[in-house]
Amino acid sequence: MKFGGTSVADLERIRNVARHVEREVKAGNEVAVVVSAMAGTTDQLVAWTREASMMHDAREYDCVVSAGEQITSGLLAITLQGMGISARSWLGWQIPMRTNDVHGAARIEGIDIEEMDRRMSEGQVAVVAGFQGVSPDGRVTTLGRGGSDTSAVALAAALRGRCDIYTDVDGVYTTDPRIVTKAQKLSRIAYEEMLEMASLGAKVLQTRSVEMAMVNQVPVQVRSSFDPPEGPFETQDHNYGPGTLVCGEEDIVEQQVVSGIAYSKDEAKVTLLKVDDKPGVAARIFGPLSSANINVDMIVQNVSEDGQRTDLTFTVADDDLQRAMAVIEEAKGDIGYQDLMGSTDVVKVSVIGIGMRSHAGVAAQMFQVLADKGINIQAITTSEIKISILIDAAYTELAVRALHSAYGLDAE
Amino acid sequence: MKFGGTSVADLERIRNVARHVEREVKAGNEVAVVVSAMAGTTDQLVAWTREASMMHDAREYDCVVSAGEQITSGLLAITLQGMGISARSWLGWQIPMRTNDVHGAARIEGIDIEEMDRRMSEGQVAVVAGFQGVSPDGRVTTLGRGGSDTSAVALAAALRGRCDIYTDVDGVYTTDPRIVTKAQKLSRIAYEEMLEMASLGAKVLQTRSVEMAMVNQVPVQVRSSFDPPEGPFETQDHNYGPGTLVCGEEDIVEQQVVSGIAYSKDEAKVTLLKVDDKPGVAARIFGPLSSANINVDMIVQNVSEDGQRTDLTFTVADDDLQRAMAVIEEAKGDIGYQDLMGSTDVVKVSVIGIGMRSHAGVAAQMFQVLADKGINIQAITTSEIKISILIDAAYTELAVRALHSAYGLDAE
Repeated sequence: MKFGGTSVADLERIRNVARHVEREVKAGNEVAVVVSAMAGTTDQLVAWTREASMMHDAREYDCVVSAGEQITSGLLAITLQGMGISARSWLGWQIPMRTNDVHGAARIEGIDIEEMDRRMSEGQVAVVAGFQGVSPDGRVTTLGRGGSDTSAVALAAALRGRCDIYTDVDGVYTTDPRIVTKAQKLSRIAYEEMLEMASLGAKVLQTRSVEMAMVNQVPVQVRSSFDPPEGPFETQDHNYGPGTLVCGEEDIVEQQVVSGIAYSKDEAKVTLLKVDDKPGVAARIFGPLSSANINVDMIVQNVSEDGQRTDLTFTVADDDLQRAMAVIEEAKGDIGYQDLMGSTDVVKVSVIGIGMRSHAGVAAQMFQVLADKGINIQAITTSEIKISILIDAAYTELAVRALHSAYGLDAE
Repeated sequence: MKFGGTSVADLERIRNVARHVEREVKAGNEVAVVVSAMAGTTDQLVAWTREASMMHDAREYDCVVSAGEQITSGLLAITLQGMGISARSWLGWQIPMRTNDVHGAARIEGIDIEEMDRRMSEGQVAVVAGFQGVSPDGRVTTLGRGGSDTSAVALAAALRGRCDIYTDVDGVYTTDPRIVTKAQKLSRIAYEEMLEMASLGAKVLQTRSVEMAMVNQVPVQVRSSFDPPEGPFETQDHNYGPGTLVCGEEDIVEQQVVSGIAYSKDEAKVTLLKVDDKPGVAARIFGPLSSANINVDMIVQNVSEDGQRTDLTFTVADDDLQRAMAVIEEAKGDIGYQDLMGSTDVVKVSVIGIGMRSHAGVAAQMFQVLADKGINIQAITTSEIKISILIDAAYTELAVRALHSAYGLDAE
């Protein structure tokens, strides 16, 4: 079980978490519960490290910031004990949760789970400080923002258990319910689909935790910590229950062609007009961007009209737009182009579904729906289970609603 | 160097601490600096553990509460780095500072100082989270309230260094300056004297840290963190400098007969009237008190007038008065007495000085001074270097001022 910052924001919320744990214990389960810092604590600690010095050592940052989860883990253990439930806290170095030494964004290398597993088998609830581990030379590490999800999935993998992620939403939806009121909660979603959803801005799970769950085949149940803790929640056989089960596609019996519509507004578009269309020009554009650590997502190169000059458009994260423009400006002599334009006024809309592997026509339908609404497509990328298009941001809601309806995702 | 909670209360104060450290580094010293939690943090964490459950596991209490010093140690290391000073934080388990498993009040059993010592000899400042250690089975322990003083002295002993305790007062005074405006700051005080001062309510140093300094012959300089950090503070030869040096008596050249006057208001008096004066009565009174874990300090038994009945008075901590009265009430049939009276309206005033070992007449002078002021002495205890008397609390200031003057302690 994993509970995020809003789920442990104060002692009353921590007691609520303890009641969720109590339910699972009473159902006969062995329970490890991973907790984040109390909402706001991590922000305060991060602000202090910045106030102390902008040029801080990441090892010290980790020392400071990891204190938040340490506090919550002890408080939850105390709360459980007060309810008569055997429990103890586990800090990253105590398990140990072994990571590499990339402080601030460490990767888990292994978990020595034996002692914790032994105590759990004796009925003791393991309350684990999320987001933290220990480096090879014995320093505290943190896994990066949202790393508690990754802690939880890694522990579930090591314990060969399932992972229930309690959050402030009650599951994964076919699309953003704030845009489409007929959005439906998915009872199941495949790892690959969840990965696309997460990387496209659905904030329910961290991308890294989904990757880890997929690799280790850990079933992940996303559910709300605001549900009444007394249940009844019978999800052990994963046939029903609240929230959404993220699982292997073989566990999804009635697979839809399209599972969800995602969108991301964190995109920016860069267009080079009248680029010299000669061999090596792509390398002269994208080489400097790569050197500057700027990730390029979509790329569209028009067919040149005269065989000599063409227009080229690519997208980057909107945070990187200014830097990307500067890099291209600087390389202007080398690249050879007439004009440079940048815009953040775009959105990437994606149709996701593992079913499209075996169904032709999903892309064609997408283009037709958008054409019917008069929406111009500025760029396209596809993967085996996803089609993404870049459009004018003003059409976001229109496009998402139209696609949601066209692929039969609207609730009755 | 050790800095308490008010000295690291916010980032500005932490920067001030860093400047004190910088001065010592520039003077060519190898520096370990022990920090407490930011003022208020420990109280907040303790309050949370109580809110979580009154019946909490001391191991979890330690997990939660130790986070405060962890945060400060990281923030100070970052601040020092920002000033160009090589530094790293050390948590209790990282050193390791090995303790027993008496959580909440653990005792240090050993410090594996080699790695820290090696890094310090390479010029790296060791920023140590005070108040914490690690138990034999790898749980976080805390040393009890004020334990950072003990952390600092233990490290100084292991490193064979001196220990500078920075606090919010500028040294140890002959008596409480709030009562006696002519109180003088002592430039030196012997360990034994400091121990008596500390156990009698002078809050400058924790009793345990003084004991440890005495056993290990660690020179302890008590000084103010509000002093300007740029110095000049040349205290390495202990000949002068700000604050007070706590040291062996052999290092005090001009030893006064009396070094200080202490008082403690945390006393309560219990009197049993007309007790049966027969063998074994003391055991029947103090046996039940001992079983109830109530410490008895002073005891006065009057000579019985008729050889059969006597009055008996003893003192306990005022927090224990109600329990002590109840214990004696319950044992009334066994003890045999006529009346029982309790009062917290008393104060213990003590005259302290290792010089009284070789000077007769100190006690006689004390009794004369009090008699001259018309102050009735209710009980007396003495040790080799201390005479304590119990008087009516209303006379506290009068007695302390008169004694301070009589023993020649008033400033010119």
